Amino acid sequence: MMRTQHRIVICCILAALAVLCHGAPLRRGPPVGPYRYGRKQASINASEKQLIDRCKVYFRNATLDHFSWATPPEHRTTFQQRYFVCDEDWKTQADGSKGPMFFYVGNEADVTLYLNASGLIWENAPAFGALIVFAEHRYYGVSKPFKKTLKEHMQFLTSEQAMADYAELITELKHDLGAKSSAIIGFGGSYGGMLATWMRLKYPHILDGAIAGSAPIWTYLGEDPPYDAGSFAKIVTRDASEEGGSAPACSSNVRQVWKAMFELGESKKGRAEITEAMRVCPDLLESTDDVAALADWASSAWDYMAMGNFPYPSTYILNGGGEMPAYPVRVACESLAKEKMSTDELFSGFADSLGIFYNYTKDVECYDFKAGANPETEEDGNFWDYQWCTEQFQPFSRDGKHDMYWDQPFSMKDSIERCQGQWGVTPRPMWATIQWGGRRIETASNIVFSNGLYDPWHGGGVLKNLSDSLVAVIIPEGAHHIDLMFSNKLDPPSVKQARAFELDNIRKWIDEVAERNKQQLPSSSISGTS
Amino acid sequence: MMRTQHRIVICCILAALAVLCHGAPLRRGPPVGPYRYGRKQASINASEKQLIDRCKVYFRNATLDHFSWATPPEHRTTFQQRYFVCDEDWKTQADGSKGPMFFYVGNEADVTLYLNASGLIWENAPAFGALIVFAEHRYYGVSKPFKKTLKEHMQFLTSEQAMADYAELITELKHDLGAKSSAIIGFGGSYGGMLATWMRLKYPHILDGAIAGSAPIWTYLGEDPPYDAGSFAKIVTRDASEEGGSAPACSSNVRQVWKAMFELGESKKGRAEITEAMRVCPDLLESTDDVAALADWASSAWDYMAMGNFPYPSTYILNGGGEMPAYPVRVACESLAKEKMSTDELFSGFADSLGIFYNYTKDVECYDFKAGANPETEEDGNFWDYQWCTEQFQPFSRDGKHDMYWDQPFSMKDSIERCQGQWGVTPRPMWATIQWGGRRIETASNIVFSNGLYDPWHGGGVLKNLSDSLVAVIIPEGAHHIDLMFSNKLDPPSVKQARAFELDNIRKWIDEVAERNKQQLPSSSISGTS
Repeated sequence: MMRTQHRIVICCILAALAVLCHGAPLRRGPPVGPYRYGRKQASINASEKQLIDRCKVYFRNATLDHFSWATPPEHRTTFQQRYFVCDEDWKTQADGSKGPMFFYVGNEADVTLYLNASGLIWENAPAFGALIVFAEHRYYGVSKPFKKTLKEHMQFLTSEQAMADYAELITELKHDLGAKSSAIIGFGGSYGGMLATWMRLKYPHILDGAIAGSAPIWTYLGEDPPYDAGSFAKIVTRDASEEGGSAPACSSNVRQVWKAMFELGESKKGRAEITEAMRVCPDLLESTDDVAALADWASSAWDYMAMGNFPYPSTYILNGGGEMPAYPVRVACESLAKEKMSTDELFSGFADSLGIFYNYTKDVECYDFKAGANPETEEDGNFWDYQWCTEQFQPFSRDGKHDMYWDQPFSMKDSIERCQGQWGVTPRPMWATIQWGGRRIETASNIVFSNGLYDPWHGGGVLKNLSDSLVAVIIPEGAHHIDLMFSNKLDPPSVKQARAFELDNIRKWIDEVAERNKQQLPSSSISGTS
Repeated sequence: MMRTQHRIVICCILAALAVLCHGAPLRRGPPVGPYRYGRKQASINASEKQLIDRCKVYFRNATLDHFSWATPPEHRTTFQQRYFVCDEDWKTQADGSKGPMFFYVGNEADVTLYLNASGLIWENAPAFGALIVFAEHRYYGVSKPFKKTLKEHMQFLTSEQAMADYAELITELKHDLGAKSSAIIGFGGSYGGMLATWMRLKYPHILDGAIAGSAPIWTYLGEDPPYDAGSFAKIVTRDASEEGGSAPACSSNVRQVWKAMFELGESKKGRAEITEAMRVCPDLLESTDDVAALADWASSAWDYMAMGNFPYPSTYILNGGGEMPAYPVRVACESLAKEKMSTDELFSGFADSLGIFYNYTKDVECYDFKAGANPETEEDGNFWDYQWCTEQFQPFSRDGKHDMYWDQPFSMKDSIERCQGQWGVTPRPMWATIQWGGRRIETASNIVFSNGLYDPWHGGGVLKNLSDSLVAVIIPEGAHHIDLMFSNKLDPPSVKQARAFELDNIRKWIDEVAERNKQQLPSSSISGTS
């Protein structure tokens, strides 16, 4: 049997994706990034420990509800928001002003995850003399507005509230640290990159520029041209094909697996055959619903391997709990490389491929796709589902033709009903586009959008320059915001170029702020009288 | 005694200013614009009737709470928002697309008030082939989310919610009317101009440009350089001085009045003298509190006369219920023109000056500064006070040295306590500046800020160009957003020039949209795979 530890990680990764741990028949597609399965206490290895030791942790009284003045539940008008300040590189500049602030716009997990992973910030702060701040997103990590009653008071979990927290925090920091004239550069990956983008749209007076790594801001309903809800699955499929450097037969073999799985899954005998060939733990496949759950669980592995399809071994997608090999999709595809595989060969090869993600310890004896989640680690993952069920209503679909899955059209009706049942909320499908502008963001400025073409999220990313200061950089060999990570000797040139491009833009933004500081801001000019 | 009708108008004008009708000792200074004393049913004269008859009225299901997914009070997730659509000038353009939309961004009153007053929109829609829309601000006019329980559910009254209503409405209209490619030009005066500005800041994908008439967006705490909280009073004083075209002695005589009033007001005998000399109705001045209330009531008249210091007779500041003469401050000052006036002469002349505002019917026999308000008309005025007590926390002060009043420093503490007592809410003094950027709006575009120098609100207005497309126009002889009104043969050249400048900018914005429509918006470019 799998060890408990592994089951935790696996199920948490799945939590927001398919809610399999709770048995809900959700197949809404992938969430933003791997991060939403945060940890109460991030696991920190030796080098990471050094990073967090270079920071001071603070908690501030953040406004609970920026958008109304209602009497709040339990009469709490504020909550304790955590943030880290790391100032050892912060230098006074030649003109006497304080250096810039590199501000990580926290997303859907414990902020120490980003603190430990954001090499781009750490490696470049010294050259910029920059202050580093990592801010935690409300409801995640330890920045939870309520304790036992948290799930009764989910209404304050929105992106707008989180951005207002950051706007207040930056304003306070500039004041408290005497950094009134410092340039503020936002960094974020995945949903954090979306938040950094939206902050530059909505709070350009707070954030002077934003590095938005793998930020799928164009993944909502109501966009014009519309978002291709099938793009995520198509890109995973591309990763598992010759174009993605994988065995040419891989994606068509994967497609065959589902077909065989659903056909055999109809009968008890067939389910026993699947159990045997795929090394599923005994007595789990009792019904067609179980088979559907197995398929969801298995397909998720490919989603995550594609997001983590880095050119070097990485613990990132496994949240530091284990390591996937370089180009995990290619490695997974090695077990499905043969042109004409029998059904047994397919299941056996498929089980091997899943092991890259689900058996990274190499000691899993059978797959328990129903394993329950650790309540603590489950929470953050679930909270992204709340966000998805309210304003982050991103459609996902698969069709089994343009991708290697089976037909799973996006059903707005089913999704809404599922959200009503799960959280008692009704999504407002058009809100994200009305609020954040969809494709119409051309009036914004000072954002670098980076996207790796192995990352399935790039289908909703900004891939072309929209103006001189809304610029896109493509990393053909990159997966999910690889550019934000620490440098690695296996980094392809495109990643190095992307980082250099980002640093150039940051320098330009800082220069703009210095120029602006020289100019007097306009005041009211009232004619005095007596 | 004054007729009931007059007392209503008077007290409602005062409602949000000094809350005298309720006896609260509020002296927080002037509210935004005269509009907040809305009407349940706007009084419509013959020509106005023609305007409203040119429109169709609609009610839409507006989202009650855009910023959370909480279960709302009484389980209402929407409310009926009123808007008017006037399409007789709407033309299809040479390129086959529909003409632009002139969208009035409703502010703190019944929207028919703006419909009837916004001559700039009506006079120019034909030349632009424009659709006209007047949208009502939630909680005002008839767009109230709750009926009897409204005051128990004030938390949904915020500028952010109102702007989100407009963003949704415009999106719906563009879709429903086949106007996807139409340019949307926002118009607003006073708080409406602030909303139009902020919509251009926060929803530039919804509003393509904004005419912000007399929009005091720089009137908040935390601005840098700080807002001069005394500017409003200084400008009223300037209007009542030689520089404002008034009798040179006027403002110093007004300053003498308060001194005499407070000195005499200490004694019963003195209060009797004031009552007699100022023609106050009998038995109202019983205490020094009454004297303070009289002073507030009287000083308000000057605030409103200054806002309405138009170069022609106008019913605007009196909400269509009566007419003030051209340059009412100058006319009021005629009664205070003498160099050395005795105390009796001062009170008598002051009473005459107040009559321009409080006795426009010429048949008021005595001033009843305690008269109660009509509950219906009171409500809108009070609602602005709720907004002031939450996010629109604009400081106001007078010092009696740089202005013609008496010393009234702004007290944050007193103001907050007053708001807590009045509405059970605590203002967040820095929120407006964090949310809307204070002076730091230079990244926005396509806004014309117009300000009349007779208008006391111009002290918080944008008086200089901030960029090529954030442009200011000054109307030296203008009062509160005169440029938005109907043309008048007595319009000074500066108003005509301001309107021409605004129309030039509107043309430019419409051309930009036409240019943008020719370009393909960016889509995601996903490599297909099989």
